[in-house]
Amino acid sequence: MWFTEAWTPNINFQVKIKEHLYSKKTPFQQLEVYDSYELGRFFTLDGIMMANEKDEFIYHEMIIHTPMSINPKIKHVLVIGGGDGGSVRELSKYPTIETIDMVEIDEDVVRACQKYFPITTTGFSDPRVNLMFDDGLKYVKETKKTYDLIIVDSTDPIGPGEGLFTQEFYMNCHRVLSEDGILINQHESPYFEKEKIEMKRAHQKIKSLFKIASVYQAFIPTYPSGHWLFGFASKRYDPVLDFKDTFIHQFGVKTKYYNKEIHTGSFALPNYVKDELENI
Amino acid sequence: MWFTEAWTPNINFQVKIKEHLYSKKTPFQQLEVYDSYELGRFFTLDGIMMANEKDEFIYHEMIIHTPMSINPKIKHVLVIGGGDGGSVRELSKYPTIETIDMVEIDEDVVRACQKYFPITTTGFSDPRVNLMFDDGLKYVKETKKTYDLIIVDSTDPIGPGEGLFTQEFYMNCHRVLSEDGILINQHESPYFEKEKIEMKRAHQKIKSLFKIASVYQAFIPTYPSGHWLFGFASKRYDPVLDFKDTFIHQFGVKTKYYNKEIHTGSFALPNYVKDELENI
Repeated sequence: MWFTEAWTPNINFQVKIKEHLYSKKTPFQQLEVYDSYELGRFFTLDGIMMANEKDEFIYHEMIIHTPMSINPKIKHVLVIGGGDGGSVRELSKYPTIETIDMVEIDEDVVRACQKYFPITTTGFSDPRVNLMFDDGLKYVKETKKTYDLIIVDSTDPIGPGEGLFTQEFYMNCHRVLSEDGILINQHESPYFEKEKIEMKRAHQKIKSLFKIASVYQAFIPTYPSGHWLFGFASKRYDPVLDFKDTFIHQFGVKTKYYNKEIHTGSFALPNYVKDELENI
Repeated sequence: MWFTEAWTPNINFQVKIKEHLYSKKTPFQQLEVYDSYELGRFFTLDGIMMANEKDEFIYHEMIIHTPMSINPKIKHVLVIGGGDGGSVRELSKYPTIETIDMVEIDEDVVRACQKYFPITTTGFSDPRVNLMFDDGLKYVKETKKTYDLIIVDSTDPIGPGEGLFTQEFYMNCHRVLSEDGILINQHESPYFEKEKIEMKRAHQKIKSLFKIASVYQAFIPTYPSGHWLFGFASKRYDPVLDFKDTFIHQFGVKTKYYNKEIHTGSFALPNYVKDELENI
Protein backbone atom coordinates (compact mmCIF):
# COMPACT_ATOMS: atom_id res chain seq x y z
CA MET A 1 0.00 0.00 0.00
CA TRP A 2 1.25 3.45 -0.94
CA PHE A 3 0.33 6.88 0.42
CA THR A 4 0.27 9.34 -2.49
CA GLU A 5 0.48 13.09 -2.06
CA ALA A 6 -0.16 15.17 -5.17
CA TRP A 7 2.55 17.84 -4.86
CA THR A 8 0.91 19.35 -7.95
CA PRO A 9 -1.71 17.89 -10.33
CA ASN A 10 1.31 16.62 -12.31
CA ILE A 11 3.78 15.55 -9.61
CA ASN A 12 3.20 12.80 -7.03
CA PHE A 13 5.19 11.89 -3.95
CA GLN A 14 4.58 8.32 -2.78
CA VAL A 15 5.45 6.61 0.47
CA LYS A 16 5.17 2.85 1.01
CA ILE A 17 2.98 2.17 4.03
CA LYS A 18 3.68 -0.45 6.67
CA GLU A 19 0.49 0.11 8.63
CA HIS A 20 -2.46 2.51 8.71
CA LEU A 21 -2.59 3.26 12.43
CA TYR A 22 -5.44 5.73 12.88
CA SER A 23 -8.12 7.63 10.99
CA LYS A 24 -10.52 10.29 12.22
CA LYS A 25 -12.75 12.92 10.71
CA THR A 26 -12.25 15.69 13.26
CA PRO A 27 -14.53 18.76 13.40
CA PHE A 28 -11.92 20.54 11.27
CA GLN A 29 -10.15 18.09 8.96
CA GLN A 30 -9.44 14.50 8.01
CA LEU A 31 -6.63 13.08 10.16
CA GLU A 32 -4.68 9.92 9.28
CA VAL A 33 -1.71 8.32 11.02
CA TYR A 34 0.52 5.86 9.17
CA ASP A 35 3.65 3.86 9.79
CA SER A 36 6.03 3.69 6.82
CA TYR A 37 9.25 1.89 5.88
CA GLU A 38 11.25 4.96 4.94
CA LEU A 39 9.98 7.80 7.12
CA GLY A 40 8.76 5.97 10.22
CA ARG A 41 5.42 7.19 11.51
CA PHE A 42 3.78 10.19 9.87
CA PHE A 43 0.42 11.92 9.95
CA THR A 44 -1.60 13.74 7.34
CA LEU A 45 -4.31 16.41 7.49
CA ASP A 46 -6.69 16.47 4.51
CA GLY A 47 -4.22 14.27 2.63
CA ILE A 48 -1.15 16.47 3.17
CA MET A 49 1.83 15.12 5.13
CA MET A 50 2.42 17.23 8.23
CA ALA A 51 5.25 15.54 10.09
CA ASN A 52 7.18 12.28 10.02
CA GLU A 53 9.68 10.71 12.37
CA LYS A 54 12.58 10.89 9.90
CA ASP A 55 12.79 14.61 9.27
CA GLU A 56 10.47 16.50 11.65
CA PHE A 57 13.61 17.70 13.46
CA ILE A 58 14.56 19.89 10.51
CA TYR A 59 11.32 21.87 10.46
CA HIS A 60 11.10 22.20 14.24
CA GLU A 61 14.71 23.17 14.84
CA MET A 62 14.58 25.78 12.10
CA ILE A 63 11.28 27.33 13.19
CA ILE A 64 12.43 27.70 16.83
CA HIS A 65 16.19 28.07 17.13
CA THR A 66 16.44 30.74 14.45
CA PRO A 67 14.41 33.37 16.37
CA MET A 68 15.66 32.19 19.77
CA SER A 69 19.25 32.87 18.66
CA ILE A 70 18.41 36.42 17.63
CA ASN A 71 17.02 37.48 20.99
CA PRO A 72 18.12 35.39 23.99
CA LYS A 73 15.87 37.50 26.25
CA ILE A 74 12.67 35.98 24.88
CA LYS A 75 10.50 35.08 27.88
CA HIS A 76 6.90 34.80 26.67
CA VAL A 77 6.11 32.75 23.60
CA LEU A 78 2.88 32.11 21.70
CA VAL A 79 2.61 29.09 19.37
CA ILE A 80 -0.31 29.07 16.95
CA GLY A 81 -1.03 25.63 15.53
CA GLY A 82 1.81 23.19 16.10
CA GLY A 83 -0.47 20.36 17.21
CA ASP A 84 2.24 17.73 16.82
CA GLY A 85 4.17 19.37 19.66
CA GLY A 86 7.53 19.67 17.90
CA SER A 87 7.73 23.45 18.24
CA VAL A 88 6.88 23.32 21.95
CA ARG A 89 9.45 20.55 22.43
CA GLU A 90 12.22 22.75 20.98
CA LEU A 91 11.08 25.80 22.99
CA SER A 92 11.06 23.76 26.20
CA LYS A 93 14.83 23.27 25.85
CA TYR A 94 15.40 26.92 26.84
CA PRO A 95 15.34 27.41 30.63
CA THR A 96 15.27 31.17 29.91
CA ILE A 97 11.69 31.02 28.59
CA GLU A 98 9.02 31.65 31.25
CA THR A 99 5.70 30.92 29.51
CA ILE A 100 4.68 29.04 26.36
CA ASP A 101 1.06 29.54 25.32
CA MET A 102 -0.06 27.24 22.55
CA VAL A 103 -3.31 27.75 20.64
CA GLU A 104 -4.26 24.79 18.43
CA ILE A 105 -7.67 24.66 16.79
CA ASP A 106 -7.93 20.88 16.62
CA GLU A 107 -7.66 18.94 19.89
CA ASP A 108 -7.84 15.66 17.99
CA VAL A 109 -4.46 16.39 16.38
CA VAL A 110 -2.82 16.86 19.77
CA ARG A 111 -4.42 13.74 21.23
CA ALA A 112 -3.45 11.57 18.24
CA CYS A 113 0.12 12.89 18.35
CA GLN A 114 0.35 12.23 22.09
CA LYS A 115 -0.57 8.64 21.36
CA TYR A 116 1.42 8.00 18.17
CA PHE A 117 4.30 10.53 18.27
CA PRO A 118 6.02 10.42 21.65
CA ILE A 119 9.01 11.81 19.67
CA THR A 120 7.37 15.24 19.17
CA THR A 121 5.06 15.57 22.17
CA THR A 122 7.50 15.47 25.09
CA GLY A 123 7.28 19.25 25.53
CA PHE A 124 3.58 19.21 26.46
CA SER A 125 4.39 18.03 29.97
CA ASP A 126 6.55 21.13 30.60
CA PRO A 127 4.80 23.16 33.35
CA ARG A 128 5.47 26.40 31.44
CA VAL A 129 3.20 25.20 28.61
CA ASN A 130 -0.42 26.39 28.59
CA LEU A 131 -2.31 24.46 25.92
CA MET A 132 -5.54 26.03 24.57
CA PHE A 133 -7.85 24.57 21.94
CA ASP A 134 -9.09 27.60 20.09
CA ASP A 135 -9.00 29.44 16.80
CA GLY A 136 -5.64 31.23 16.46
CA LEU A 137 -7.08 34.23 14.61
CA LYS A 138 -9.71 34.72 17.31
CA TYR A 139 -7.10 34.32 20.05
CA VAL A 140 -4.72 37.00 18.76
CA LYS A 141 -7.67 39.39 18.22
CA GLU A 142 -8.84 39.03 21.80
CA THR A 143 -5.77 38.45 23.95
CA LYS A 144 -4.52 41.21 26.25
CA LYS A 145 -1.15 39.53 26.68
CA THR A 146 2.15 40.62 25.16
CA TYR A 147 4.56 38.13 23.61
CA ASP A 148 8.25 38.28 22.72
CA LEU A 149 7.89 35.59 20.07
CA ILE A 150 4.98 34.25 18.03
CA ILE A 151 5.43 30.98 16.12
CA VAL A 152 2.83 30.37 13.42
CA ASP A 153 3.20 26.63 12.91
CA SER A 154 0.26 26.27 10.57
CA THR A 155 -1.04 24.04 7.81
CA ASP A 156 -1.37 25.40 4.27
CA PRO A 157 -3.78 28.33 3.80
CA ILE A 158 -6.64 26.02 2.82
CA GLY A 159 -9.10 24.76 5.43
CA PRO A 160 -8.52 25.55 9.10
CA GLY A 161 -5.13 27.23 8.42
CA GLU A 162 -6.62 29.87 6.11
CA GLY A 163 -7.17 32.55 8.76
CA LEU A 164 -3.49 32.35 9.73
CA PHE A 165 -2.47 33.80 6.35
CA THR A 166 -4.71 36.92 6.50
CA GLN A 167 -3.76 40.57 6.92
CA GLU A 168 -6.05 40.69 9.97
CA PHE A 169 -4.11 37.88 11.63
CA TYR A 170 -0.68 39.43 10.96
CA MET A 171 -1.94 42.84 12.21
CA ASN A 172 -3.01 41.28 15.46
CA CYS A 173 0.30 39.46 15.78
CA HIS A 174 2.03 42.83 15.36
CA ARG A 175 -0.24 44.30 18.06
CA VAL A 176 0.45 41.63 20.69
CA LEU A 177 4.20 41.49 20.06
CA SER A 178 6.54 43.40 22.37
CA GLU A 179 8.78 46.13 20.96
CA ASP A 180 11.54 43.63 20.27
CA GLY A 181 9.08 40.89 19.35
CA ILE A 182 9.63 38.39 16.54
CA LEU A 183 7.04 36.69 14.34
CA ILE A 184 7.96 33.42 12.62
CA ASN A 185 5.62 31.70 10.21
CA GLN A 186 5.54 28.60 8.06
CA HIS A 187 5.97 30.33 4.69
CA GLU A 188 5.29 27.71 2.01
CA SER A 189 7.74 27.12 -0.87
CA PRO A 190 9.08 28.87 -3.98
CA TYR A 191 9.15 26.01 -6.48
CA PHE A 192 5.69 24.77 -7.40
CA GLU A 193 3.00 27.26 -8.41
CA LYS A 194 0.46 26.77 -5.61
CA GLU A 195 2.92 27.26 -2.75
CA LYS A 196 4.73 30.03 -4.63
CA ILE A 197 1.56 32.12 -4.82
CA GLU A 198 0.97 31.73 -1.09
CA MET A 199 4.61 32.55 -0.36
CA LYS A 200 4.28 35.81 -2.30
CA ARG A 201 0.95 36.75 -0.67
CA ALA A 202 2.20 36.07 2.85
CA HIS A 203 5.40 38.04 2.31
CA GLN A 204 3.55 41.02 0.83
CA LYS A 205 1.24 41.22 3.83
CA ILE A 206 3.94 40.78 6.46
CA LYS A 207 6.24 43.28 4.74
CA SER A 208 3.51 45.92 4.83
CA LEU A 209 3.32 45.63 8.64
CA PHE A 210 6.80 44.94 9.99
CA LYS A 211 9.94 47.05 9.80
CA ILE A 212 11.98 43.92 9.04
CA ALA A 213 10.53 41.04 7.01
CA SER A 214 12.83 38.31 5.73
CA VAL A 215 12.44 34.78 4.48
CA TYR A 216 14.67 31.81 5.27
CA GLN A 217 14.81 28.25 4.03
CA ALA A 218 15.55 24.64 4.93
CA PHE A 219 15.95 21.30 3.18
CA ILE A 220 12.78 19.40 4.15
CA PRO A 221 12.68 16.47 1.72
CA THR A 222 9.12 15.36 2.52
CA TYR A 223 7.44 18.72 1.84
CA PRO A 224 6.61 19.61 -1.78
CA SER A 225 9.89 20.26 -3.66
CA GLY A 226 11.95 19.85 -0.47
CA HIS A 227 12.69 23.58 -0.51
CA TRP A 228 10.67 25.00 2.38
CA LEU A 229 10.50 28.54 3.69
CA PHE A 230 9.92 30.33 6.97
CA GLY A 231 9.07 34.01 7.45
CA PHE A 232 11.02 36.13 9.94
CA ALA A 233 9.41 39.45 10.89
CA SER A 234 10.45 41.86 13.60
CA LYS A 235 9.98 45.41 14.74
CA ARG A 236 13.64 45.62 15.61
CA TYR A 237 16.00 42.77 14.82
CA ASP A 238 17.69 41.96 11.56
CA PRO A 239 17.97 38.14 11.49
CA VAL A 240 21.49 38.16 10.03
CA LEU A 241 23.06 41.45 11.19
CA ASP A 242 21.83 41.03 14.77
CA PHE A 243 22.85 37.39 14.95
CA LYS A 244 25.97 36.56 16.91
CA ASP A 245 25.81 32.92 17.82
CA THR A 246 23.41 30.19 18.79
CA PHE A 247 22.94 29.92 22.52
CA ILE A 248 21.01 26.67 22.90
CA HIS A 249 24.36 24.89 23.21
CA GLN A 250 24.90 26.64 26.54
CA PHE A 251 22.24 24.31 27.89
CA GLY A 252 23.94 21.16 26.57
CA VAL A 253 21.41 20.70 23.78
CA LYS A 254 22.61 19.18 20.53
CA THR A 255 20.85 20.09 17.31
CA LYS A 256 20.79 17.76 14.32
CA TYR A 257 20.23 20.41 11.65
CA TYR A 258 20.59 23.95 13.02
CA ASN A 259 23.99 25.53 13.66
CA LYS A 260 25.65 28.93 13.44
CA GLU A 261 26.53 28.72 9.75
CA ILE A 262 23.10 27.30 8.87
CA HIS A 263 21.50 30.31 10.59
CA THR A 264 23.13 32.82 8.25
CA GLY A 265 23.13 30.49 5.26
CA SER A 266 19.40 29.86 5.52
CA PHE A 267 18.72 33.54 4.76
CA ALA A 268 20.79 33.33 1.54
CA LEU A 269 18.00 32.91 -0.99
CA PRO A 270 18.46 31.93 -4.63
CA ASN A 271 17.97 34.78 -7.10
CA TYR A 272 14.77 33.30 -8.49
CA VAL A 273 13.24 33.21 -5.00
CA LYS A 274 14.32 36.79 -4.24
CA ASP A 275 12.83 37.92 -7.55
CA GLU A 276 9.48 36.30 -6.75
CA LEU A 277 9.39 37.84 -3.27
CA GLU A 278 10.31 41.31 -4.49
CA ASN A 279 8.11 41.40 -7.61
CA ILE A 280 4.66 40.98 -6.17
CA MET B 1 0.93 8.31 -18.30
CA TRP B 2 3.32 8.80 -15.39
CA PHE B 3 7.09 8.48 -15.19
CA THR B 4 7.99 6.91 -11.84
CA GLU B 5 11.42 7.13 -10.30
CA ALA B 6 12.02 5.00 -7.21
CA TRP B 7 13.97 7.38 -4.96
CA THR B 8 14.26 4.43 -2.61
CA PRO B 9 12.44 1.06 -2.66
CA ASN B 10 9.87 2.80 -0.42
CA ILE B 11 9.64 6.32 -1.90
CA ASN B 12 8.48 7.17 -5.44
CA PHE B 13 8.65 10.43 -7.35
CA GLN B 14 6.14 10.61 -10.21
CA VAL B 15 5.91 13.01 -13.12
CA LYS B 16 2.90 13.21 -15.43
CA ILE B 17 4.05 12.75 -19.02
CA LYS B 18 2.77 14.74 -21.97
CA GLU B 19 4.74 12.86 -24.60
CA HIS B 20 7.44 10.19 -24.81
CA LEU B 21 9.76 11.81 -27.34
CA TYR B 22 12.67 9.42 -27.74
CA SER B 23 14.03 6.08 -26.60
CA LYS B 24 17.37 4.43 -27.31
CA LYS B 25 19.45 1.64 -25.87
CA THR B 26 22.90 3.17 -26.28
CA PRO B 27 26.08 1.08 -25.94
CA PHE B 28 26.22 2.28 -22.30
CA GLN B 29 22.72 2.84 -20.94
CA GLN B 30 19.01 3.18 -21.62
CA LEU B 31 18.17 6.74 -22.71
CA GLU B 32 14.63 8.18 -22.67
CA VAL B 33 13.41 11.70 -23.46
CA TYR B 34 10.00 12.87 -22.24
CA ASP B 35 7.92 16.02 -22.30
CA SER B 36 6.00 16.68 -19.08
CA TYR B 37 3.39 19.13 -17.81
CA GLU B 38 5.28 20.30 -14.74
CA LEU B 39 8.97 20.09 -15.61
CA GLY B 40 8.97 20.59 -19.37
CA ARG B 41 11.25 18.22 -21.23
CA PHE B 42 13.48 15.86 -19.31
CA PHE B 43 15.68 12.87 -20.01
CA THR B 44 16.53 9.76 -18.04
CA LEU B 45 19.47 7.34 -18.07
CA ASP B 46 18.66 3.84 -16.83
CA GLY B 47 15.42 5.21 -15.36
CA ILE B 48 17.00 8.06 -13.36
CA MET B 49 16.10 11.66 -14.18
CA MET B 50 19.21 13.55 -15.28
CA ALA B 51 17.99 17.02 -16.26
CA ASN B 52 14.72 18.82 -16.90
CA GLU B 53 13.88 22.22 -18.35
CA LYS B 54 12.40 23.57 -15.10
CA ASP B 55 15.35 23.29 -12.76
CA GLU B 56 18.49 22.29 -14.67
CA PHE B 57 19.73 25.86 -14.11
CA ILE B 58 20.18 25.16 -10.39
CA TYR B 59 22.53 22.21 -10.84
CA HIS B 60 24.52 23.80 -13.66
CA GLU B 61 24.93 27.23 -12.06
CA MET B 62 26.05 25.68 -8.79
CA ILE B 63 28.53 23.23 -10.32
CA ILE B 64 30.22 25.96 -12.41
CA HIS B 65 29.95 29.39 -10.80
CA THR B 66 31.08 28.21 -7.37
CA PRO B 67 34.61 27.23 -8.47
CA MET B 68 34.83 30.00 -11.08
CA SER B 69 34.24 32.58 -8.34
CA ILE B 70 37.07 31.19 -6.20
CA ASN B 71 39.73 31.53 -8.87
CA PRO B 72 39.00 34.02 -11.65
CA LYS B 73 42.28 33.04 -13.35
CA ILE B 74 40.97 29.65 -14.46
CA LYS B 75 41.92 29.21 -18.13
CA HIS B 76 41.86 25.50 -18.93
CA VAL B 77 38.86 23.42 -17.93
CA LEU B 78 38.08 19.71 -18.20
CA VAL B 79 34.48 18.51 -18.00
CA ILE B 80 33.96 14.77 -17.45
CA GLY B 81 30.44 13.63 -18.32
CA GLY B 82 28.00 16.51 -18.67
CA GLY B 83 26.43 15.16 -21.86
CA ASP B 84 23.43 17.48 -21.65
CA GLY B 85 25.76 20.44 -22.18
CA GLY B 86 24.59 22.54 -19.21
CA SER B 87 28.02 22.70 -17.59
CA VAL B 88 29.70 23.73 -20.84
CA ARG B 89 26.98 26.35 -21.39
CA GLU B 90 27.75 27.99 -18.03
CA LEU B 91 31.53 27.81 -18.61
CA SER B 92 31.14 29.42 -22.03
CA LYS B 93 29.83 32.58 -20.33
CA TYR B 94 33.36 33.38 -19.09
CA PRO B 95 35.46 35.12 -21.75
CA THR B 96 38.46 34.55 -19.43
CA ILE B 97 38.45 30.78 -20.09
CA GLU B 98 40.68 29.68 -22.97
CA THR B 99 39.91 25.98 -23.47
CA ILE B 100 37.09 23.66 -22.42
CA ASP B 101 37.77 19.96 -22.98
CA MET B 102 34.75 17.76 -22.46
CA VAL B 103 34.99 13.97 -22.20
CA GLU B 104 31.62 12.22 -22.36
CA ILE B 105 31.44 8.45 -22.68
CA ASP B 106 28.08 8.32 -24.47
CA GLU B 107 27.78 10.20 -27.75
CA ASP B 108 24.10 9.30 -27.97
CA VAL B 109 23.36 11.45 -24.91
CA VAL B 110 24.96 14.50 -26.53
CA ARG B 111 23.16 13.93 -29.83
CA ALA B 112 19.77 13.46 -28.17
CA CYS B 113 20.28 16.57 -26.05
CA GLN B 114 21.32 18.59 -29.10
CA LYS B 115 18.00 17.61 -30.67
CA TYR B 116 15.66 17.86 -27.68
CA PHE B 117 17.36 20.33 -25.29
CA PRO B 118 18.43 23.45 -27.14
CA ILE B 119 18.20 25.06 -23.66
CA THR B 120 21.30 23.23 -22.38
CA THR B 121 23.35 22.61 -25.52
CA THR B 122 24.08 26.15 -26.70
CA GLY B 123 27.63 26.00 -25.34
CA PHE B 124 28.71 23.20 -27.69
CA SER B 125 29.06 25.66 -30.56
CA ASP B 126 31.64 27.70 -28.61
CA PRO B 127 34.98 27.39 -30.49
CA ARG B 128 36.85 26.90 -27.21
CA VAL B 129 34.99 23.62 -26.63
CA ASN B 130 36.73 20.38 -27.62
CA LEU B 131 34.22 17.53 -27.35
CA MET B 132 35.64 14.00 -26.98
CA PHE B 133 33.66 10.77 -26.72
CA ASP B 134 35.75 8.66 -24.40
CA ASP B 135 35.89 7.09 -20.96
CA GLY B 136 36.66 9.79 -18.37
CA LEU B 137 38.76 7.50 -16.17
CA LYS B 138 40.89 6.45 -19.15
CA TYR B 139 41.23 10.07 -20.28
CA VAL B 140 42.58 11.42 -16.98
CA LYS B 141 44.99 8.47 -16.72
CA GLU B 142 46.47 9.16 -20.13
CA THR B 143 46.31 12.90 -20.69
CA LYS B 144 49.49 14.98 -20.59
CA LYS B 145 47.55 18.22 -20.23
CA THR B 146 47.22 20.34 -17.09
CA TYR B 147 43.88 21.82 -16.03
CA ASP B 148 42.90 24.63 -13.66
CA LEU B 149 39.45 23.17 -13.09
CA ILE B 150 37.94 19.70 -13.46
CA ILE B 151 34.16 19.33 -13.38
CA VAL B 152 32.92 15.79 -12.75
CA ASP B 153 29.35 16.04 -14.00
CA SER B 154 28.58 12.36 -13.69
CA THR B 155 25.66 10.00 -13.22
CA ASP B 156 25.36 7.96 -10.01
CA PRO B 157 28.20 5.49 -9.32
CA ILE B 158 26.31 2.61 -10.93
CA GLY B 159 26.81 1.75 -14.60
CA PRO B 160 29.00 4.00 -16.77
CA GLY B 161 29.51 6.54 -13.94
CA GLU B 162 31.12 4.03 -11.59
CA GLY B 163 34.74 4.68 -12.56
CA LEU B 164 34.28 8.39 -11.79
CA PHE B 165 33.89 7.61 -8.07
CA THR B 166 37.10 5.58 -7.69
CA GLN B 167 40.30 6.43 -5.84
CA GLU B 168 42.19 5.88 -9.09
CA PHE B 169 40.07 8.52 -10.85
CA TYR B 170 40.48 11.12 -8.10
CA MET B 171 44.25 10.45 -7.97
CA ASN B 172 44.54 11.14 -11.66
CA CYS B 173 42.44 14.29 -11.33
CA HIS B 174 44.86 15.45 -8.63
CA ARG B 175 47.77 14.68 -10.96
CA VAL B 176 46.46 16.66 -13.95
CA LEU B 177 45.33 19.67 -11.88
CA SER B 178 47.59 22.73 -11.71
CA GLU B 179 48.93 23.91 -8.35
CA ASP B 180 45.89 26.10 -7.78
CA GLY B 181 43.55 23.66 -9.47
CA ILE B 182 40.02 22.89 -8.30
CA LEU B 183 38.07 19.63 -8.59
CA ILE B 184 34.26 19.77 -8.44
CA ASN B 185 32.15 16.65 -8.46
CA GLN B 186 28.51 15.68 -8.34
CA HIS B 187 28.47 14.37 -4.77
CA GLU B 188 25.12 12.61 -4.27
CA SER B 189 22.86 13.42 -1.29
CA PRO B 190 22.78 13.02 2.50
CA TYR B 191 19.15 12.03 3.08
CA PHE B 192 18.33 8.61 1.66
CA GLU B 193 20.58 5.66 2.44
CA LYS B 194 21.88 4.79 -1.04
CA GLU B 195 23.09 8.30 -1.90
CA LYS B 196 24.33 8.85 1.65
CA ILE B 197 26.71 5.88 1.40
CA GLU B 198 28.12 7.17 -1.90
CA MET B 199 28.45 10.67 -0.44
CA LYS B 200 30.54 9.30 2.44
CA ARG B 201 32.70 7.14 0.20
CA ALA B 202 33.42 9.93 -2.27
CA HIS B 203 34.29 12.39 0.50
CA GLN B 204 36.61 9.92 2.23
CA LYS B 205 38.54 9.31 -0.98
CA ILE B 206 38.81 12.96 -2.00
CA LYS B 207 39.79 14.05 1.52
CA SER B 208 42.67 11.56 1.50
CA LEU B 209 44.13 13.24 -1.60
CA PHE B 210 43.43 16.96 -1.43
CA LYS B 211 44.59 19.54 1.10
CA ILE B 212 41.13 21.10 1.09
CA ALA B 213 37.98 19.00 0.61
CA SER B 214 34.58 20.53 1.28
CA VAL B 215 31.01 19.74 0.38
CA TYR B 216 28.32 22.22 -0.66
CA GLN B 217 24.62 21.90 -1.36
CA ALA B 218 21.73 23.16 -3.45
CA PHE B 219 17.96 22.82 -3.54
CA ILE B 220 17.32 20.60 -6.58
CA PRO B 221 13.70 19.47 -6.17
CA THR B 222 13.76 16.80 -8.88
CA TYR B 223 16.73 14.84 -7.50
CA PRO B 224 16.08 12.35 -4.69
CA SER B 225 15.21 14.29 -1.50
CA GLY B 226 15.83 17.64 -3.21
CA HIS B 227 18.96 18.08 -1.08
CA TRP B 228 21.86 17.64 -3.49
CA LEU B 229 25.58 17.95 -2.86
CA PHE B 230 28.71 18.92 -4.74
CA GLY B 231 32.29 18.27 -3.72
CA PHE B 232 34.87 21.05 -3.76
CA ALA B 233 38.51 19.95 -3.60
CA SER B 234 41.62 22.05 -4.04
CA LYS B 235 45.33 22.00 -3.42
CA ARG B 236 45.20 25.63 -2.36
CA TYR B 237 41.88 27.45 -2.09
CA ASP B 238 39.40 27.41 0.74
CA PRO B 239 35.98 27.81 -0.90
CA VAL B 240 34.66 30.20 1.76
CA LEU B 241 37.76 31.98 3.14
CA ASP B 242 39.20 32.63 -0.32
CA PHE B 243 35.87 33.78 -1.76
CA LYS B 244 35.41 37.49 -2.27
CA ASP B 245 32.65 37.96 -4.78
CA THR B 246 31.13 36.42 -7.87
CA PHE B 247 32.62 37.81 -11.04
CA ILE B 248 30.32 36.45 -13.73
CA HIS B 249 28.23 39.62 -13.35
CA GLN B 250 31.13 41.60 -14.80
CA PHE B 251 30.19 40.02 -18.10
CA GLY B 252 26.52 41.02 -17.87
CA VAL B 253 25.40 37.48 -17.09
CA LYS B 254 22.40 37.05 -14.81
CA THR B 255 22.14 33.92 -12.70
CA LYS B 256 18.78 32.56 -11.57
CA TYR B 257 20.05 30.66 -8.52
CA TYR B 258 23.68 31.48 -7.71
CA ASN B 259 24.70 34.69 -5.95
CA LYS B 260 27.26 35.89 -3.42
CA GLU B 261 25.27 34.90 -0.33
CA ILE B 262 24.33 31.53 -1.84
CA HIS B 263 28.02 30.82 -2.42
CA THR B 264 28.88 31.03 1.28
CA GLY B 265 25.52 29.70 2.45
CA SER B 266 25.81 26.58 0.29
CA PHE B 267 28.83 25.46 2.33
CA ALA B 268 26.83 25.75 5.60
CA LEU B 269 25.90 22.11 6.09
CA PRO B 270 23.35 20.80 8.60
CA ASN B 271 24.86 19.07 11.62
CA TYR B 272 23.56 15.67 10.57
CA VAL B 273 25.33 16.01 7.20
CA LYS B 274 28.58 17.14 8.80
CA ASP B 275 28.42 14.20 11.20
CA GLU B 276 27.99 11.73 8.35
CA LEU B 277 30.88 13.24 6.41
CA GLU B 278 33.21 13.31 9.40
CA ASN B 279 32.35 9.91 10.86
CA ILE B 280 33.27 7.57 8.06
